[in-house]
Amino acid sequence: MTGAQSVPFLKGHGTENDFVILPDPDGLLELPPRTVARLCDRRAGIGGDGLLHVVRSAAHPEARAAASDAEWFMDYRNADGSVAEMCGNGVRVFVRHLERAGLVKPGEVPVATRAGVRHTRLAEDGSGVTVRMGRAALPGGDVSVRVAERPEDAARPAVHVSMGNPHAVVFVGELADAGALLQPPLVEPAAAYPAGVNVEFVADRGPRHVAMRVHERGSGETRSCGTGACAVMVAAARRDGLDPVADGEDATYTVEVPGGTLVITERADGEVEMTGPAVIVAEGLVDLGRLGA
Amino acid sequence: MTGAQSVPFLKGHGTENDFVILPDPDGLLELPPRTVARLCDRRAGIGGDGLLHVVRSAAHPEARAAASDAEWFMDYRNADGSVAEMCGNGVRVFVRHLERAGLVKPGEVPVATRAGVRHTRLAEDGSGVTVRMGRAALPGGDVSVRVAERPEDAARPAVHVSMGNPHAVVFVGELADAGALLQPPLVEPAAAYPAGVNVEFVADRGPRHVAMRVHERGSGETRSCGTGACAVMVAAARRDGLDPVADGEDATYTVEVPGGTLVITERADGEVEMTGPAVIVAEGLVDLGRLGA
Repeated sequence: MTGAQSVPFLKGHGTENDFVILPDPDGLLELPPRTVARLCDRRAGIGGDGLLHVVRSAAHPEARAAASDAEWFMDYRNADGSVAEMCGNGVRVFVRHLERAGLVKPGEVPVATRAGVRHTRLAEDGSGVTVRMGRAALPGGDVSVRVAERPEDAARPAVHVSMGNPHAVVFVGELADAGALLQPPLVEPAAAYPAGVNVEFVADRGPRHVAMRVHERGSGETRSCGTGACAVMVAAARRDGLDPVADGEDATYTVEVPGGTLVITERADGEVEMTGPAVIVAEGLVDLGRLGA
Repeated sequence: MTGAQSVPFLKGHGTENDFVILPDPDGLLELPPRTVARLCDRRAGIGGDGLLHVVRSAAHPEARAAASDAEWFMDYRNADGSVAEMCGNGVRVFVRHLERAGLVKPGEVPVATRAGVRHTRLAEDGSGVTVRMGRAALPGGDVSVRVAERPEDAARPAVHVSMGNPHAVVFVGELADAGALLQPPLVEPAAAYPAGVNVEFVADRGPRHVAMRVHERGSGETRSCGTGACAVMVAAARRDGLDPVADGEDATYTVEVPGGTLVITERADGEVEMTGPAVIVAEGLVDLGRLGA
């Protein structure tokens, strides 16, 4: 595979939220939406929930202003080829790639994204990557959730949490109470979420330890959702009587998602940090000319 | 990625039935079901409908007896790690890999499989690969199919075709008549198909030209099914008054599947041949140690 259209790629995942990674330090690749969509097509291409285009900030028009703060820009694309601002699982995989490629060392690694510079920390022992996810907001109000395929169940109360994007967090006895999740849960009042909502179902596993399933707006049930895990941690902490900003003390929860385990800390300064695994499973060359793009 | 557990892989597809390919000429790889399942996992691994383990027949205990007839053995694995006998789309991709690797030349390429030696033909111009798929059998009997999510629709008559595996072929006005195909179609009498059935919905596109959708037993709707396309061609030919064995003349149909286009010929000697594309999109190294297998 040595044609002019072969380009280096990697494939990796963070808690089974998976990505095609395209290293392109000098920003030379043309990536129209159709090419991205074909790369992310699981049968005709490589396959991924999204694409991480790895470009030096100084070489990308959308990141040049951030170049003095963050050497690398995560040009994140959704699987349909559209651009996106940030992805908490994606940024861990992005940093893991930089480390493997010898481009950064363990410690603090700032990453430029369309949502601004994100501060990450790469563990010395290779165990995980920590990402600052911003502050949670709890706008309050009565929100309830019903499982679409279980119309006989009563509506369950939910906690409205914003991590920049909207979440409804529902505590249940068992994760199976969420049913097959083939249809979006019914959230009321709909006016609480004018842009749609991600719904998390949460069951306790032990002290400061929960497990969750998530239905993401537009995607259906997924193996992991970084902002969803943060929303769940904050909702669980409040339920448990913890409020790190008021208490002046960090709180840390273990949050199991279907694709692995995340550790979420809400700090005394209000910042939510997510620590989780990031794995590169394969690398090679992909032939853009054979993708039918 | 230079660890001891990194092994070469390729990814390719035939009409979007996709495969992880593991070249292993001397049969040195250990491939327990769990490793295969993780390689085929679309999020934690590479991702594929199945795995093509490429071994010299002389180096594999299941193929040694065939080594004088076919140099290469397609050790086919399902995505769950179980072994399988044959895959019509897979064998095209297998042959395309052998060609790219310089291991075979265009022309006749016999391939050893668990279903015996399969005769394939690689086009000089790289356009496609032809595979002999065996003879069709039409056991007759009244079979009918209903679309599960459209209980109000009348049962539609179906043609029972065996290509070694069982098919029910239903002619419809439009492919949309099959609905969303999220549930298996209801086939009666169930006794006609004791081992389950693959159901094809077929619409006409022109003279000797049809389009189909397929619901595969155990998999749901898929982008392509090689034996299903053969069953559809034979059912369409009989409907059109063609019987190559009786007529002493080959009949050829174009069969569109969701993932591309296949050309199926039923020869005057009864053999069904399928010609279709086979594409390798990527190659590289996969780190078996990071698959969690």
